[in-house]
Amino acid sequence: MGLPVVGMIGGGQLSRMTHQAAIALGLSLHVLADATRDSAARVAQGVTFGDHRDLTDVREFAAGCEVVTFDHEHVPGPLIEALEDEGVTVLPGSAALRHAQDKVVMRERLSALGVPVPPFCPVATRRDVEGFAQHVGWPLVLKAATGGYDGRGVWVVPDAAAADEVLASGVRLLAEQLVPLRRELAAVVARSPWGQAAAWPVVETVQSDGICVEVVAPAPDLPENLVLAAQEVALQLADALDVVGVLAVELFEIDGHDGPALLVNELAMRPHNSAHWTIEGARTSQFEQHLRAVLDYPLGVTTATAPWVVMANVLGGEGEPDLDRRLHLLMGRDPALKVHLYGKDVRPRRKIGHVTALGDDLAQVRERARTGAHWLRTGAWPDDYVPHYDSRRDA
Amino acid sequence: MGLPVVGMIGGGQLSRMTHQAAIALGLSLHVLADATRDSAARVAQGVTFGDHRDLTDVREFAAGCEVVTFDHEHVPGPLIEALEDEGVTVLPGSAALRHAQDKVVMRERLSALGVPVPPFCPVATRRDVEGFAQHVGWPLVLKAATGGYDGRGVWVVPDAAAADEVLASGVRLLAEQLVPLRRELAAVVARSPWGQAAAWPVVETVQSDGICVEVVAPAPDLPENLVLAAQEVALQLADALDVVGVLAVELFEIDGHDGPALLVNELAMRPHNSAHWTIEGARTSQFEQHLRAVLDYPLGVTTATAPWVVMANVLGGEGEPDLDRRLHLLMGRDPALKVHLYGKDVRPRRKIGHVTALGDDLAQVRERARTGAHWLRTGAWPDDYVPHYDSRRDA
Repeated sequence: MGLPVVGMIGGGQLSRMTHQAAIALGLSLHVLADATRDSAARVAQGVTFGDHRDLTDVREFAAGCEVVTFDHEHVPGPLIEALEDEGVTVLPGSAALRHAQDKVVMRERLSALGVPVPPFCPVATRRDVEGFAQHVGWPLVLKAATGGYDGRGVWVVPDAAAADEVLASGVRLLAEQLVPLRRELAAVVARSPWGQAAAWPVVETVQSDGICVEVVAPAPDLPENLVLAAQEVALQLADALDVVGVLAVELFEIDGHDGPALLVNELAMRPHNSAHWTIEGARTSQFEQHLRAVLDYPLGVTTATAPWVVMANVLGGEGEPDLDRRLHLLMGRDPALKVHLYGKDVRPRRKIGHVTALGDDLAQVRERARTGAHWLRTGAWPDDYVPHYDSRRDA
Repeated sequence: MGLPVVGMIGGGQLSRMTHQAAIALGLSLHVLADATRDSAARVAQGVTFGDHRDLTDVREFAAGCEVVTFDHEHVPGPLIEALEDEGVTVLPGSAALRHAQDKVVMRERLSALGVPVPPFCPVATRRDVEGFAQHVGWPLVLKAATGGYDGRGVWVVPDAAAADEVLASGVRLLAEQLVPLRRELAAVVARSPWGQAAAWPVVETVQSDGICVEVVAPAPDLPENLVLAAQEVALQLADALDVVGVLAVELFEIDGHDGPALLVNELAMRPHNSAHWTIEGARTSQFEQHLRAVLDYPLGVTTATAPWVVMANVLGGEGEPDLDRRLHLLMGRDPALKVHLYGKDVRPRRKIGHVTALGDDLAQVRERARTGAHWLRTGAWPDDYVPHYDSRRDA
């Protein structure tokens, strides 16, 4: 008897890498993609083209799948509810997913659950923002309640005039204190319908202009009590919100009254950039685990395969890179670096791939990941690089 | 600029797993398959259906590829030569590949190179066989010069009458001494057109009725001088035969005059069952390495990721298994086991997948791999298995 068919809505790199994991399990991921040039559509056998906002398209896609899951949060909630009403197994379900789709819903629910979040307030007018500013001061953060990612939909506003500009865009907003951070962390877990859950090591995430550029596993120098607190809050939320699949909890590490403390910043209910390191760095990758979870299979062990793992995102640079040449030279420089390219058209600052380095020495591992990502983006080595003399080529 | 297109002739599990590796490198493997149910055809985007023995089919397939490589040895040599004459880049090339296609050519070349092989002789008549038997005694081995695999094309014959039956089949044969083995080993390397080569740890391979059932990396208790000798002979052959891509050298460990010694049994010039363990067990898998080699990229490091890695093949059992249920229960029993299913129709003793276990304790790792493969084949645990009491399910 055949294995169940898993459908993933969205043709991005998360689908692409989930497809890789599906192949090992004897499956072939079915993908609902926008276009043939989509990252996953370039590599998967079962691709349907359609609009993820169109009930007819999604319904038709879902008809061929035992379970439907997501590579992004942009499928409208009412559409998912309609599918559920028709008996389609959608995981995570609409009731869970809304907490990853709507930041106001998420913040209010987390507050009700007693989970610490940054001070926030839904705002619709200048008066709302000014009122909130009296509590948290300027500058403050405005965030689109829905639809933002990779720094889009987030504005740091210094004063009421700047807030006006954002308010004028008409999007539903929440205001938030600009929290003084020590750093950002992520606690990633997976949970199955049956209720089994498993947590990976807590990682440090490094952002640049709102885009994640680097992830260090495990988060260096994070006190054990905070590691456990981060994993516990992620497991608690997965259970309380009935999440199925991967749940990534983005965290702020802040100075609390008695030392460092944690606030929950964002939730994502799908494979997440902060766990790409698990492909080589953990015994079970987030992509395999997501599949196991949505299929209600027992989850895999999440132990790390090396003392330090650093993932660096490869962002698009200017112009059209000669990736063939860059890949060639990078492999010559660092034959242990793991490269992942997503087959996407290159645009400035678009995530087009990532590299992962593993090893015993954090500084070296980090340097290798950074060097690889910088090289693939720019075609230039960091300034201090001295090429090795290669006796054979010159012989 | 785009990355080169790699085409692989053959739609089996080797293509399937090479496609997984290609995805990470930003590529999508193009596959020439026989039918939609082929293992790789189920998961790859770029699949062409055609006959690998038909020049027109293969030429048309090759026209869309920068380099063409193989998942099996069954493409006729003259066809490959014709492609090469037309300017197609075929790797490994026909001059190398004939040593993996024709055992007589291989044995004679290796003998000329001074590489130790079992005593052998091309035979066409009963008289040839009897003449050879005078040197090596009965029983002896007859092998089809071309086309055999997984125990097919190999006959152990006790006497001349039995030899007659094999001779009557009309296939071209060589006779070989039935060498008293200590065990079988494999030395797997990869080599690029530029001449870079890299060797993985030498492994022990365990056969049952001519089919590989288990691979242990590294080969337990293999003296360091034999490890080096095995790697050196594989590197020497890769160079001497101008192999590009993965070269697997199957070896016999025998009792020599001064202790254990090695004989070369077979060559394969493609990703090979004896290196499936490298997917999780080595920093660079054989599938990624094969791609790097045929693209003339620098090769990746081949260090192991765990002290012991054991791969066990999952063979087809009787009837149609409920793989969904078996996978589910296996994951519950061993959440660290890595499962690879090939999406193939199940037939008795056909390779339908493999499992890989990694760890510090060889006996445990071996037991886990064997248990997993046995369970997936039969749907039964080994007799000594006591199910764990699961408090939550019974709550």
